[in-house]
Amino acid sequence: MSRVSIYDTTLRDGSQGEGVNFSLQDKLLLTKRLDEIGVDYIEGGYPLSNPKDFEYFQAVRGLDLKHAKVCAFGMTRRKNTPAETDTCLKALLDAHTPVVTIVGKTWDFHVTEVLGTTLDENCAMIADSVQYCKAQGREVFYDAEHFFDGYRANPEYALRTLKAAAGAGATAVILCDTNGGTMPERVAEVVAIVTRALPCEVGIHCHNDCELAVANSLAAVRAGATQVQGTMNGIGERCGNVDLISVIANLALKYKYDVLKPGSLTRLTETSRYAYELANMNARNGQPFVGQSAFAHKGGMHTHAVAKDPSTYEHITPEAVGNERRILVSELSGHSTILSKTAKYQMNHDKALTTKILHAVQDLENAGYEFEAAEASFDLLVRKVAKDHKPWQVDKSLTLYKPWFERISYRVNIEARANGTPITEGTVRLKVAGVVEHTASEGDGPVNALDGALRRALVRFYPRLEEMQLVDYKVRVVNPKAGTAAKVRVVIESRDGTDVWGTVGVSENIIEASWLALCDAIEFKLFKDVERDQK
Amino acid sequence: MSRVSIYDTTLRDGSQGEGVNFSLQDKLLLTKRLDEIGVDYIEGGYPLSNPKDFEYFQAVRGLDLKHAKVCAFGMTRRKNTPAETDTCLKALLDAHTPVVTIVGKTWDFHVTEVLGTTLDENCAMIADSVQYCKAQGREVFYDAEHFFDGYRANPEYALRTLKAAAGAGATAVILCDTNGGTMPERVAEVVAIVTRALPCEVGIHCHNDCELAVANSLAAVRAGATQVQGTMNGIGERCGNVDLISVIANLALKYKYDVLKPGSLTRLTETSRYAYELANMNARNGQPFVGQSAFAHKGGMHTHAVAKDPSTYEHITPEAVGNERRILVSELSGHSTILSKTAKYQMNHDKALTTKILHAVQDLENAGYEFEAAEASFDLLVRKVAKDHKPWQVDKSLTLYKPWFERISYRVNIEARANGTPITEGTVRLKVAGVVEHTASEGDGPVNALDGALRRALVRFYPRLEEMQLVDYKVRVVNPKAGTAAKVRVVIESRDGTDVWGTVGVSENIIEASWLALCDAIEFKLFKDVERDQK
Repeated sequence: MSRVSIYDTTLRDGSQGEGVNFSLQDKLLLTKRLDEIGVDYIEGGYPLSNPKDFEYFQAVRGLDLKHAKVCAFGMTRRKNTPAETDTCLKALLDAHTPVVTIVGKTWDFHVTEVLGTTLDENCAMIADSVQYCKAQGREVFYDAEHFFDGYRANPEYALRTLKAAAGAGATAVILCDTNGGTMPERVAEVVAIVTRALPCEVGIHCHNDCELAVANSLAAVRAGATQVQGTMNGIGERCGNVDLISVIANLALKYKYDVLKPGSLTRLTETSRYAYELANMNARNGQPFVGQSAFAHKGGMHTHAVAKDPSTYEHITPEAVGNERRILVSELSGHSTILSKTAKYQMNHDKALTTKILHAVQDLENAGYEFEAAEASFDLLVRKVAKDHKPWQVDKSLTLYKPWFERISYRVNIEARANGTPITEGTVRLKVAGVVEHTASEGDGPVNALDGALRRALVRFYPRLEEMQLVDYKVRVVNPKAGTAAKVRVVIESRDGTDVWGTVGVSENIIEASWLALCDAIEFKLFKDVERDQK
Repeated sequence: MSRVSIYDTTLRDGSQGEGVNFSLQDKLLLTKRLDEIGVDYIEGGYPLSNPKDFEYFQAVRGLDLKHAKVCAFGMTRRKNTPAETDTCLKALLDAHTPVVTIVGKTWDFHVTEVLGTTLDENCAMIADSVQYCKAQGREVFYDAEHFFDGYRANPEYALRTLKAAAGAGATAVILCDTNGGTMPERVAEVVAIVTRALPCEVGIHCHNDCELAVANSLAAVRAGATQVQGTMNGIGERCGNVDLISVIANLALKYKYDVLKPGSLTRLTETSRYAYELANMNARNGQPFVGQSAFAHKGGMHTHAVAKDPSTYEHITPEAVGNERRILVSELSGHSTILSKTAKYQMNHDKALTTKILHAVQDLENAGYEFEAAEASFDLLVRKVAKDHKPWQVDKSLTLYKPWFERISYRVNIEARANGTPITEGTVRLKVAGVVEHTASEGDGPVNALDGALRRALVRFYPRLEEMQLVDYKVRVVNPKAGTAAKVRVVIESRDGTDVWGTVGVSENIIEASWLALCDAIEFKLFKDVERDQK
């Protein structure tokens, strides 16, 4: 098994992506996690470009990394300036990283038109910069910007720039498809030529503008490249950098290369989600290998076959990358889906019951519900339908639905003056265990106020609600064509010490939709605890 | 230029995707649009599977398509049943489409274990089904399910199933990488073998489980396949089918194949967005070629270079696929971004002003704002900063900020009883042109009620607000780690007869955030109209 090095540039090139923003703390947390799974190189930033990157390089030295080498990124020296007095190289060295990565120009047209210098001076800029950093004790990687475009325009000159870097002591030259426009067979051809022509290692850095970044990176490795640069989840400018998650999974599982540390492959899913959380981005459900839907089955025929033999519709086992199989509740799925979702309740011999559940799901879907991200609401639905179903012959693994409280009314009032924070008050009247509770709470906003009033009313009866907190809140217009008068779907994610669960509410009124999702979240918590205590 | 046929299965295989739901009307609208751009085959559904698909095939005959052939999808006859009496084949023929696509088994293991029949009977099922449909006057395509897995397990048998289809009169056999687990070089190798072995056309049908569906489809075409099956935007089960948008753009622009109709390439972006809208899905910003970010530039260095020469960071011109270049407002972008965004106002000679704008943007970004989807709010910010800037020497192309109304207060009240629709009332007190207006409105929800009260107060003064409507409303928790007490960002999209514009509001209170975004939407409309009238 030959080794391929993984070079992560999420914190530098990835942060160029639209909507991506890392705090200093986020950057340190991601560095720690990438080190844990065995990423070989972590590019932390561009020390000259902003103060946050500079602070990062100071702080990262306190992290005690076990495996990864931190890299600082910068440009070659300016034209006609000695390396020793160049401010960018100075900033690069002041980062005190074991590795520096220097980017330079390959494309003759860019050298003369963008840099405004001679082809010879550009080669000198590359060689001087590499040599100077090397002399200061750094390992040096050389990123050849626009390599494939430059090589097409002038192959001889493009190779000459690489030789300048290699001759000056670069450990590796990295061929960048900066604009993401190169096709895989061309990448393979050019990488093979470069690998033969150079004494040092060759790496690859792809962008996804043609949806070919993964294919291009794999083609480069098969043609001789030994380092792949990319980002977690493929975040990055325009269409993103190559997604290292897919690269790693393909290299390890399909081509049997040695990547990361032993055992790390099963941490890919959690690492991907952690990176999304730090970047404050929504995960992409359909993301290969690690997406929520990557092993989700919806079609009736498919779910039936998967239940029989997963290899019929799965190319690898989800566990290999730390993901899991999901059977989706949807109008297309039919009985076999409902059967798999409810298998744990041993009701599957009762076809009339599963038919009722299926119809209840379909009715709610027509009204705008979706249960795919709200399995706790689906669970409550099953309990409700089962309760009204006679004869009920299911074993005791399922606690039938009972209302834990009854809503009498609620009210929310938001008042704002010309400036300043609005004042929000929520009140609820509930009947709990035969007693009418009438409580009120202020809140940062209407949902927070209702949540506060609900808890105030209930916690005396159900003290374990204290353990629970709301962790995410999403709103989507169900039919955007109709504007504000359309329905909204609210999905809430809640958490306690052991579980995370999603609930859903739909209404024309965002407050009512939020109320429904909140109540489901509380009821699910109460049922879950009862069943756990019975075990 | 050799021709590659495009076979769209968005309505059938695409609708297996998580969260995808097409109404009958949606299906007809998409069919019409795909026909307009020159898609060759449109797979409308699986007539046996659900009544909506059956209705589609009835209704589609009234559409008067100019180019595309509609295809119905179904399975080979059941084992040991004559084709003439098979219910699936009957449903397929009852769809009255010019083309039928029949799917069958390739993999010996599936034949014996899943179908539970003999290898010979499976070949007979394929041949009989193709022959029978052909005899009824249909053009027949044969989809070989799990072809690449089946070919690996038993190449001789896999080829035999294809020959059964071709011998019985299929126009094309389509090789399906059903589980999406095959690597591009393998796809190329197998397609080349099949193409040589068969007398008919060969097609390719890929899934994206390894993020290689586009590469695999291109490799197949280069190895001899003449038909590509896929979906708009790559929607579909698990990680999706191959995205036809990327396939089409690469085939046409990179390999110069003849696809679609002349001129249709520039309609790819609008077609992609239309398909998202019909599927009621959020578009993916980073989608190659057609995504909102596909030609968006954020880094200061990059935006500077792109302004000089777009080919430095763009592999094609955005116009080639009907997309456009965007310069993003963000903390990383610095001056050159602000300069490009404000170029139309001819303030670029005034560095002190652009610096002030940059700082204002950075402050708001730190508070949770993002202007990437809210260019109208950015426009108002520019007007506000410019107003306070002395000396102001900009030409008259920019109307400086003036408040169109002043908020004195607002209030929203939502009351709900045990059941039924909550009652929502909003009141606002504004000062407009020196007059205090105090209005109230009911609404479906709090935002709708506030919007109603605002319009009631303002429309007497600004009648053109009647033209404006709210078309989308999105809420995102800015820092989900902090639960309900976190800030929320509300983005509103508004429209009048000529424009669509986005505005943003951020607050701990969802109502306040919505209020801010609503007020920006109204103010932008008023400024925009004034400037247009001046021209």
